[in-house]
Amino acid sequence: MTAAELAQLLEATVEGDTSAELSGGAALEVAGPHDLVFVDSRDAIAGASATEAGCILMRADVAAPAGKTVIRVPKPRNAFAKAMRALVPTERPQAGIDSTAVVADSAVIGAGAFIGPRVVIEDGVCIGADAIVRAGSFVGRGSSVGDGASVHANVTIYAGVEIGERTTLHSGCVIGADGFGFVLENGRYEKFPQVGGVKIGSDVEIGANSCVDRGALGDTVIRDGAKIDNLVHIGHNCQIGNHVVMAAQVGLSGGVRMDDYVVVGGQAGLGEKSHIEAQAVLGGQCGVLPNKTIAGGKAYWGSPARPHREYLKKMALVDKLPEILAELEALRARVEATTTER
Amino acid sequence: MTAAELAQLLEATVEGDTSAELSGGAALEVAGPHDLVFVDSRDAIAGASATEAGCILMRADVAAPAGKTVIRVPKPRNAFAKAMRALVPTERPQAGIDSTAVVADSAVIGAGAFIGPRVVIEDGVCIGADAIVRAGSFVGRGSSVGDGASVHANVTIYAGVEIGERTTLHSGCVIGADGFGFVLENGRYEKFPQVGGVKIGSDVEIGANSCVDRGALGDTVIRDGAKIDNLVHIGHNCQIGNHVVMAAQVGLSGGVRMDDYVVVGGQAGLGEKSHIEAQAVLGGQCGVLPNKTIAGGKAYWGSPARPHREYLKKMALVDKLPEILAELEALRARVEATTTER
Amino acid sequence: MTAAELAQLLEATVEGDTSAELSGGAALEVAGPHDLVFVDSRDAIAGASATEAGCILMRADVAAPAGKTVIRVPKPRNAFAKAMRALVPTERPQAGIDSTAVVADSAVIGAGAFIGPRVVIEDGVCIGADAIVRAGSFVGRGSSVGDGASVHANVTIYAGVEIGERTTLHSGCVIGADGFGFVLENGRYEKFPQVGGVKIGSDVEIGANSCVDRGALGDTVIRDGAKIDNLVHIGHNCQIGNHVVMAAQVGLSGGVRMDDYVVVGGQAGLGEKSHIEAQAVLGGQCGVLPNKTIAGGKAYWGSPARPHREYLKKMALVDKLPEILAELEALRARVEATTTER
Repeated sequence: MTAAELAQLLEATVEGDTSAELSGGAALEVAGPHDLVFVDSRDAIAGASATEAGCILMRADVAAPAGKTVIRVPKPRNAFAKAMRALVPTERPQAGIDSTAVVADSAVIGAGAFIGPRVVIEDGVCIGADAIVRAGSFVGRGSSVGDGASVHANVTIYAGVEIGERTTLHSGCVIGADGFGFVLENGRYEKFPQVGGVKIGSDVEIGANSCVDRGALGDTVIRDGAKIDNLVHIGHNCQIGNHVVMAAQVGLSGGVRMDDYVVVGGQAGLGEKSHIEAQAVLGGQCGVLPNKTIAGGKAYWGSPARPHREYLKKMALVDKLPEILAELEALRARVEATTTER
Repeated sequence: MTAAELAQLLEATVEGDTSAELSGGAALEVAGPHDLVFVDSRDAIAGASATEAGCILMRADVAAPAGKTVIRVPKPRNAFAKAMRALVPTERPQAGIDSTAVVADSAVIGAGAFIGPRVVIEDGVCIGADAIVRAGSFVGRGSSVGDGASVHANVTIYAGVEIGERTTLHSGCVIGADGFGFVLENGRYEKFPQVGGVKIGSDVEIGANSCVDRGALGDTVIRDGAKIDNLVHIGHNCQIGNHVVMAAQVGLSGGVRMDDYVVVGGQAGLGEKSHIEAQAVLGGQCGVLPNKTIAGGKAYWGSPARPHREYLKKMALVDKLPEILAELEALRARVEATTTER
Repeated sequence: MTAAELAQLLEATVEGDTSAELSGGAALEVAGPHDLVFVDSRDAIAGASATEAGCILMRADVAAPAGKTVIRVPKPRNAFAKAMRALVPTERPQAGIDSTAVVADSAVIGAGAFIGPRVVIEDGVCIGADAIVRAGSFVGRGSSVGDGASVHANVTIYAGVEIGERTTLHSGCVIGADGFGFVLENGRYEKFPQVGGVKIGSDVEIGANSCVDRGALGDTVIRDGAKIDNLVHIGHNCQIGNHVVMAAQVGLSGGVRMDDYVVVGGQAGLGEKSHIEAQAVLGGQCGVLPNKTIAGGKAYWGSPARPHREYLKKMALVDKLPEILAELEALRARVEATTTER
């Protein structure tokens, strides 16, 4: 693709060598003559003049380095992501069912789908058109995988799970295992029924080795566009809103509700039935107590989670403790001197 | 099953339409005429009159909503769990060894067991009667799986592991990987031998993608009835008591001892050779230092873990810091005024 | 192996029955007459006289218990690790490709390698000499596994990953899944390209169910001799130095740099692009903020992480809050009495 063609795709203008051939993208420092790069920070601007990249994405209000080919875009990072989807299309395995896959007769495999080696697909499963299910994955009885979805190698989908269109499940993730619910009966824990399902929307991405448990009664739900990183635990009956983002190792107990566009930092933990309102941002290692509601649109930090400003103030006060102590002793000395003196 | 039959199973009395046919269970708000529901809180009582459920489990001291069929039980939640085991029996795959499973000649497969597609069972393995080993799971040389145990898809059991009767392992869990022990020798870490085994008792449940490492010398042991959630790490040589409960993402270093009926909240971390006495409750995100003993029968919170009351007091004092500071300044002003005045 | 032979291997002297036959090792309390044991602490010395072990490794400056066979070594624990490698050699499956493995024609399998049942190896993969790839593992297009490496059952290696010589990957670990990077475009998260690779050095060990994401642009790198425990998350473009040690459930956001010999305690979390200098030690549950540099050679604790001494002082001051408050009130009473009195 030439710089001119790429500019057209991005609905942007190009300066310099419009015929420069681009075949990929890279970081500024290592880019070669056929690589696209982007500049979106003051540091990057400094590095731009030295790059050997074939083309640079940058904002219109930044001076182009001499002799470089530049495409002007309002958001260089976003434009880079879009350009890369065109320059480096995701490789797809060829459609078809591998001869070593074990597919139940009653399963329906959509047109253009790829079912990899050693995949096991049980009765009544429906795999959508153009979906990819890679080697060693398991899809349990009656579950469905949407059109264009991508299930990487060694994923486990229990029975009773719905995966939406274009959703990606990375390797090792487990969808639909039993929720963690027991009743204590004569000194023994007996299982509380975990007979609900899991419904995952479209354009969701779930990271490697993450777990989404099935509902106890009723379903665990993850809505469209949610992005979930590796090793995340989502307990039974959680309701995850559209376009929620969770970093790695976040843990949600049962029944957590998260409204749209919530962002959760790594290793945060949410108590059961807590409710995080829309666009709240929880910092890494945050803790939210059970049944707690976190108001939307603000950032929180700490365990238990507090509004970020309040958290910072509190931390600053703790840091001030040596001063407070010194102050207190000085004052006591002074009072003592005063009273003794009299 | 009719309401009358269910009442008999629960050794309870029924009021209303004893012939009501029940085929499942649900939450109050979504239940239909063939669903069982239970009422165990003040909120639930309010919702009970509107439910369309065919039958309600409730305590004898609560007024039944008009026109409903009610079974009187002392613990509605427990009774519901028991009823559901009868109403919705766990579906079992048909006994037999799938033709795509790879089973060593020297392995012994018990009567009624199910060995799923693509399972690999190595030499000398013993699978108990009526046990289920689902697709893609691996059982290493000489390990055993007890009668009636349930190993879900894509589980890995290394060599030298014993799994007890009726124990459930969810997908992706890994039992018997090497413990994490090294010695530093000439600037390089060399493996300390990890040649012990893993012994898991009866009626244990281990969640998806959890890991139980083998012992270094001697075994890692999990006793009967322990319930362990997803993504939990249990290090080498841990000794987990009967009926211990651990929520998701808990981590145990090597050699942790946990006595019977300990309960551990999500994301708690326990240092090596710490010892948690019987019936202690550790809150979510708790931290226990290495070699520390936590006294039994009480609740703990925070990192490092403190008795819950003490933790709350401490937190309250930290929250009081702005007041303390204000107080201190007021006092200083006063002292200054006093001394200046003189 | 006799005690005399073992002493020769360890370049050490033996006292007692030099012909004692040794076939394994055990803990002091459970060792039998053919077991080797080691004594490296005051407690262990006390236990040594009661052991039934056939031979004891101990330092030269400790009195040998009467009637025991003893080998004198400067570091008993290290010597034990070395001895055990000789006494209990790791069992290796016989070289060859299992008939149920699915190996692409263009893949190259080294001499002496073992490819287990149900393994899937894609186009262009290179498996080194004497490497072991156990049942159910997947190696994606173009990836390589070094000579003598050990890939346990049900591991997933995506395309574009290099695994070094003698490196061990435990079951369930996932190497090369997409990094977690998105741009927000018209209210939807679009994937930022994750087209880099993963390079893992020699003699690395990665625990069960751990995840190492591929680089966004450029590679994620783990250098020689690093030891990583279970359920660890390593984000895209992290650079992990030689002989770094990470305990279980540690999480690294994208772009974290860790220099040589860093040690990280369990459940610690590191923000993106943080930089941990050589030989720093981070305590369990530590938190490091994004872009933060942690100076090398010291121990850190808490979240956010502080030098250990500073952390302890701070904790001590918080514990002193009740005293501070009491002091303040006493002082106020005194001031009030003084001013009223006048």
